[in-house]
Amino acid sequence: MMFLVRMDVRIPHDLPATDVDAIKLREKNYSQDLQRSGKWQAIYRVVGEYANYSLFDVESNDELHTLLSGLPLFPYMEIHVTPLAQHPSSIR
Amino acid sequence: MMFLVRMDVRIPHDLPATDVDAIKLREKNYSQDLQRSGKWQAIYRVVGEYANYSLFDVESNDELHTLLSGLPLFPYMEIHVTPLAQHPSSIR
Amino acid sequence: MMFLVRMDVRIPHDLPATDVDAIKLREKNYSQDLQRSGKWQAIYRVVGEYANYSLFDVESNDELHTLLSGLPLFPYMEIHVTPLAQHPSSIR
Amino acid sequence: MMFLVRMDVRIPHDLPATDVDAIKLREKNYSQDLQRSGKWQAIYRVVGEYANYSLFDVESNDELHTLLSGLPLFPYMEIHVTPLAQHPSSIR
Amino acid sequence: MMFLVRMDVRIPHDLPATDVDAIKLREKNYSQDLQRSGKWQAIYRVVGEYANYSLFDVESNDELHTLLSGLPLFPYMEIHVTPLAQHPSSIR
Amino acid sequence: MMFLVRMDVRIPHDLPATDVDAIKLREKNYSQDLQRSGKWQAIYRVVGEYANYSLFDVESNDELHTLLSGLPLFPYMEIHVTPLAQHPSSIR
Amino acid sequence: MMFLVRMDVRIPHDLPATDVDAIKLREKNYSQDLQRSGKWQAIYRVVGEYANYSLFDVESNDELHTLLSGLPLFPYMEIHVTPLAQHPSSIR
Amino acid sequence: MMFLVRMDVRIPHDLPATDVDAIKLREKNYSQDLQRSGKWQAIYRVVGEYANYSLFDVESNDELHTLLSGLPLFPYMEIHVTPLAQHPSSIR
Amino acid sequence: MMFLVRMDVRIPHDLPATDVDAIKLREKNYSQDLQRSGKWQAIYRVVGEYANYSLFDVESNDELHTLLSGLPLFPYMEIHVTPLAQHPSSIR
Amino acid sequence: MMFLVRMDVRIPHDLPATDVDAIKLREKNYSQDLQRSGKWQAIYRVVGEYANYSLFDVESNDELHTLLSGLPLFPYMEIHVTPLAQHPSSIR
Repeated sequence: MMFLVRMDVRIPHDLPATDVDAIKLREKNYSQDLQRSGKWQAIYRVVGEYANYSLFDVESNDELHTLLSGLPLFPYMEIHVTPLAQHPSSIR
Repeated sequence: MMFLVRMDVRIPHDLPATDVDAIKLREKNYSQDLQRSGKWQAIYRVVGEYANYSLFDVESNDELHTLLSGLPLFPYMEIHVTPLAQHPSSIR
Repeated sequence: MMFLVRMDVRIPHDLPATDVDAIKLREKNYSQDLQRSGKWQAIYRVVGEYANYSLFDVESNDELHTLLSGLPLFPYMEIHVTPLAQHPSSIR
Repeated sequence: MMFLVRMDVRIPHDLPATDVDAIKLREKNYSQDLQRSGKWQAIYRVVGEYANYSLFDVESNDELHTLLSGLPLFPYMEIHVTPLAQHPSSIR
Repeated sequence: MMFLVRMDVRIPHDLPATDVDAIKLREKNYSQDLQRSGKWQAIYRVVGEYANYSLFDVESNDELHTLLSGLPLFPYMEIHVTPLAQHPSSIR
Repeated sequence: MMFLVRMDVRIPHDLPATDVDAIKLREKNYSQDLQRSGKWQAIYRVVGEYANYSLFDVESNDELHTLLSGLPLFPYMEIHVTPLAQHPSSIR
Repeated sequence: MMFLVRMDVRIPHDLPATDVDAIKLREKNYSQDLQRSGKWQAIYRVVGEYANYSLFDVESNDELHTLLSGLPLFPYMEIHVTPLAQHPSSIR
Repeated sequence: MMFLVRMDVRIPHDLPATDVDAIKLREKNYSQDLQRSGKWQAIYRVVGEYANYSLFDVESNDELHTLLSGLPLFPYMEIHVTPLAQHPSSIR
Repeated sequence: MMFLVRMDVRIPHDLPATDVDAIKLREKNYSQDLQRSGKWQAIYRVVGEYANYSLFDVESNDELHTLLSGLPLFPYMEIHVTPLAQHPSSIR
Repeated sequence: MMFLVRMDVRIPHDLPATDVDAIKLREKNYSQDLQRSGKWQAIYRVVGEYANYSLFDVESNDELHTLLSGLPLFPYMEIHVTPLAQHPSSIR
């Protein structure tokens, strides 16, 4: 089941730089593990913004929320989820 | 070069139904040809709306505009394009 | 899997009244069948507006889109879908 | 009398973690007491967001405001209330 | 139980003038009957707009929706309802 | 001359609690004095929000601004003013 | 008493051109009479838009609404009124 | 003096196609004459939309409004103008 | 050449009060000098808000930006500029 | 390939002034290097705002994101990118 997810990162400027670096490293690992599992099908940078559009393929709304709320950057992100369905013109 | 495109279809209710059917059929063929060519990489229905999110992989902004403005439904759609870049966490 | 759905009805004022009445009757039957099946768990009128908030319990995004796009009033509605998950404080 | 309530939680990042944990614990107890009483009929997590949609069944606007403004997280939430009425198609 | 209601009137310009006049006359009578009953406590014109802000004092959400949806101009209005509660600083 | 005023209170969370309490007490006294004078005709709490809708009856725009900018909470409020006029259907 | 008024003109494209011309001529005369009286202190075109910003100096909200609702183009305008007060830095 | 101008074209779908073609031809000639004169310095298509961003170099606000309101498509466009100034980092 | 300018002042609440007072005094002097020169033709308080609408009469966009960016409160203001032109109905 | 980019600068007021000056100097050099290379074709100040509109001519979305995310002020800017295409009326 596919979902389009937009994530905008807003890290407070007074967070210590070492903390930020640690969180970002964990975020990258977390993301890449999910990408390898096939759950996080794609991630694209929005040009010019500290934001991404991602495609998730999950079993349920609950699974998606568990994945997203587990993101190390979750407390510093604004996230918007759009549920997707099969398009009648899609060849896939 | 990747772009996320959202298309919202707004067909005037007083357009003759046979015209609408003809346009939709041409739209489907046009879309599937581009999907087969690899230009239109994916198309998803937005759940509950007469709208789609699509991914395009094109050579340039000009090529993308040519493809989109050639859509049979173009006169009846509101389209918004977001340019995408490689994300540093992407494994692809 | 739960979804919150808001539907705003916008019927063009020049649609013949008999057509409108026929569509509304089919809409009511369609809605009540789905309510009885348990798919459409609740429907509430938004006070002062020709709109409703509804709760759906479905198997997938695709099932929800099929149900919504089959609504007799679908061509005359603006619909927005919010995917819901289990809340950690919920006692249910 | 039914109301749909959306609550978005925005806890300042410089609040001490122990304070936050204490508030969240009180929030959960407060919410579950009201759920058991039947006043707070349902609470759902908005997928991907630190937010919920809830249904309240109360006697009056005043009662609802008293319940909401008593939430331990009230100072850190943005709340929007939509009054609901019986829908003519509802089977309940 | 108090509600603030904003009504914006949008009459299609191709509605026959005699129909519009008849609707407006019925609207005025309907409104004044409710004002005399105490349900519609106050109605003010928004300066420069074909709109009003009104205060209603009703028993329930359902009663308010019944009153509003019975307005002769209801099909041609955009209405927004805000539920109100007792303010701790109010002397009334 | 009537005005509808919406006030949203946004007190910074790092203001000392004793300062906040002192300001709120002065705010209440200030408001109640104006209510007794008939200038501040009504004040209602917006359900679920730290906000109010109020009706003012003043001689001029200048008088209204003097009253509002003198509010002890003025530095911590977002205020929006809507000028009102006599409505042709009003029975008052 | 000063007010800033923005007026956006939206004339339906299927109104007969002779009707439109007649309305515009009456609008111009109406506006210039009020300008000569000192009530309509200034009118400026918004560059690139069929819109104006105007300053009115009137006795009351009611007088302003009477002037604005009497505009021949009133049925085809979207109007927004902002009440103004003396600014402490103004030298006038 | 530079201005950024965004123009969104919204031609009513029931305008006769021959009229539309004639207007578009006049629009193109009008635009190209101004481009050759140096007043209309650049025009770009917004990808995926029937819209453009343009740069104008004119003597005054009045001159810009005269140019824009003379566009054959002016009655069918939504236009927004942003005044620009020399940027301290610009090398030109 | 006329411009309408809206300025919203947002002074951070943790700025020292003596600094704020000094900035406001300089702002007032700066504004009144420009008013006397005829560049800043009018300044009005928006009722209920820490904001003003002003009219400027300047030679160019560059001159206006120089004047506005020189405001002592410039770092703490949100400013929006609307270019104005001669209105065909204006008697001035 | 052309892009219109709007950048709004929002520097936190508690950043040390010497840090801010150093960042701004690096920003200016960075910008001017790119302007000389032809990648950053133009930069204009938005009148009255700490913001600019810029035109970039780059090979790809990825190149544009690399340039923008390398801006010394990037952490303190809100950036919005609009992809542009050849306009059929353009004489260039």
